[in-house]
Amino acid sequence: MDAALDRLLPPADQEPRTLHEAVRYSVFAGGKRFRPALVLASAQACGLDADTVLPVACAVEAVHTYSLIHDDLPSMDNADWRRGRPTCHVRYGEAIAILAGDALHDMAFQWIAAASDRLGPPDRVLRVVLDLAAALGTQGMVGGQVLDLLAERGQLPADWVPEIHRRKTGCLIRACARVGPLLSGREEDLPRLTAYGEHLGLAFQITDDVLDVVGESEKLGKRAGADEASSKATYPKVFGLERSRQMAREEAEAAVAALRPLGPRGELLAELARFVVERER
Amino acid sequence: MDAALDRLLPPADQEPRTLHEAVRYSVFAGGKRFRPALVLASAQACGLDADTVLPVACAVEAVHTYSLIHDDLPSMDNADWRRGRPTCHVRYGEAIAILAGDALHDMAFQWIAAASDRLGPPDRVLRVVLDLAAALGTQGMVGGQVLDLLAERGQLPADWVPEIHRRKTGCLIRACARVGPLLSGREEDLPRLTAYGEHLGLAFQITDDVLDVVGESEKLGKRAGADEASSKATYPKVFGLERSRQMAREEAEAAVAALRPLGPRGELLAELARFVVERER
Repeated sequence: MDAALDRLLPPADQEPRTLHEAVRYSVFAGGKRFRPALVLASAQACGLDADTVLPVACAVEAVHTYSLIHDDLPSMDNADWRRGRPTCHVRYGEAIAILAGDALHDMAFQWIAAASDRLGPPDRVLRVVLDLAAALGTQGMVGGQVLDLLAERGQLPADWVPEIHRRKTGCLIRACARVGPLLSGREEDLPRLTAYGEHLGLAFQITDDVLDVVGESEKLGKRAGADEASSKATYPKVFGLERSRQMAREEAEAAVAALRPLGPRGELLAELARFVVERER
Repeated sequence: MDAALDRLLPPADQEPRTLHEAVRYSVFAGGKRFRPALVLASAQACGLDADTVLPVACAVEAVHTYSLIHDDLPSMDNADWRRGRPTCHVRYGEAIAILAGDALHDMAFQWIAAASDRLGPPDRVLRVVLDLAAALGTQGMVGGQVLDLLAERGQLPADWVPEIHRRKTGCLIRACARVGPLLSGREEDLPRLTAYGEHLGLAFQITDDVLDVVGESEKLGKRAGADEASSKATYPKVFGLERSRQMAREEAEAAVAALRPLGPRGELLAELARFVVERER
């Protein structure tokens, strides 16, 4: 993944250098690469070559990084620390951080469109573009971030927590899980991997919230307890810690159950679902 | 154009309402709709129906609006006034303004991909997606904004002015001009409309700079002389007012000259080139 990202990202010695440096600083910050792994596993489950879908895997990591950079900004979560390093705006200033996010958002579509010849029939590539764009829009990621801000300001009731998470994290994870069926044309797998992706997204976010309470700052690379300190809407706050843990496990099991019709093709995806609830960061 | 944008934009009474309101506030702020007009004229010149390419015309207006919202932010140009109204972040706060820009950036790709069935063969639609994404990236609009910031901080020599403008404004205008040849498959028109778009973009930006010096604030809808007050790199500052005017006229003439092989098909495009240097705002 890192080698592929390095090839696709503009070189740091090309103008505007500050921008390219900031982009690379945030992309190569030691992320888990969970979303690209999910794209590759979804592709593999549908009989596609991992190398083929690498540009799509890179694209989802690019948009994920864009969302982190913008979420961390002073006017949003005002986070100064992520993955054990100063956040992008702390290191490069706010203007460059906003533009680095914008550039990464854009690169995702550029990479997919540029690789379309190798990705498959163009109508299928366009479905991936549409799926990704919808996942990032006002009914997806950006909308989730707005609801999150409203919740933090006390302008949204606590029972919106699942909806906030569905949009903010869930929609992109769902889109990653759908890449295989969309690109391979295996329509019968689309509802299966859609259901898998939806449960997986919930398992992922609930576990994130739990780790923020019980995790070690060192492993997380950011301050544990940061959610508690803010008035952020989280699962443990609404449902309690034990119930949240239980919910994460149930969602991971539901994700695995949705894979059953795939048989052995779904093994890697099932492993990812187990990783999501067992991870320590 | 406004009716088409109204149909495509998410309704203001749908959650997250603040975001949708902010998006609509900035899109319906009395812009000239120059870029969508250029898309429609390019399509018409290549024998395409204007209705067909409407989603692409809306998409370029969406990305143009996104770029204005982000450029106006406090950490960028810190502009509080545009088109006779408070800027998006003044009206809705910085967080919502950043996210409104992000949402519009994303909608552009969503609209094009969603309309692909009607736009034409999917491989051609993907070329438009690629062209647009490249025009907005680090070698295009976002890169131009970074160079502009560097110039303002005195970190870039004055002879970079044409390059800043080429990236910041020129690349998107060039992409608009290329939509007709790309979607119609008229490959022989592609170099012609590319040359037209490049000259047009320069004529447009030089005229913008000139209007900032000599224009009336009332017609501009923003403070005339704002560029002079800042240390912004502009054509009049580098080449003087008269020479700049002359350059704008020459670029418009070169744009029209590039249309010659099109014959009467190029008439609307030629009219747009004349409008660009004769406009008062």
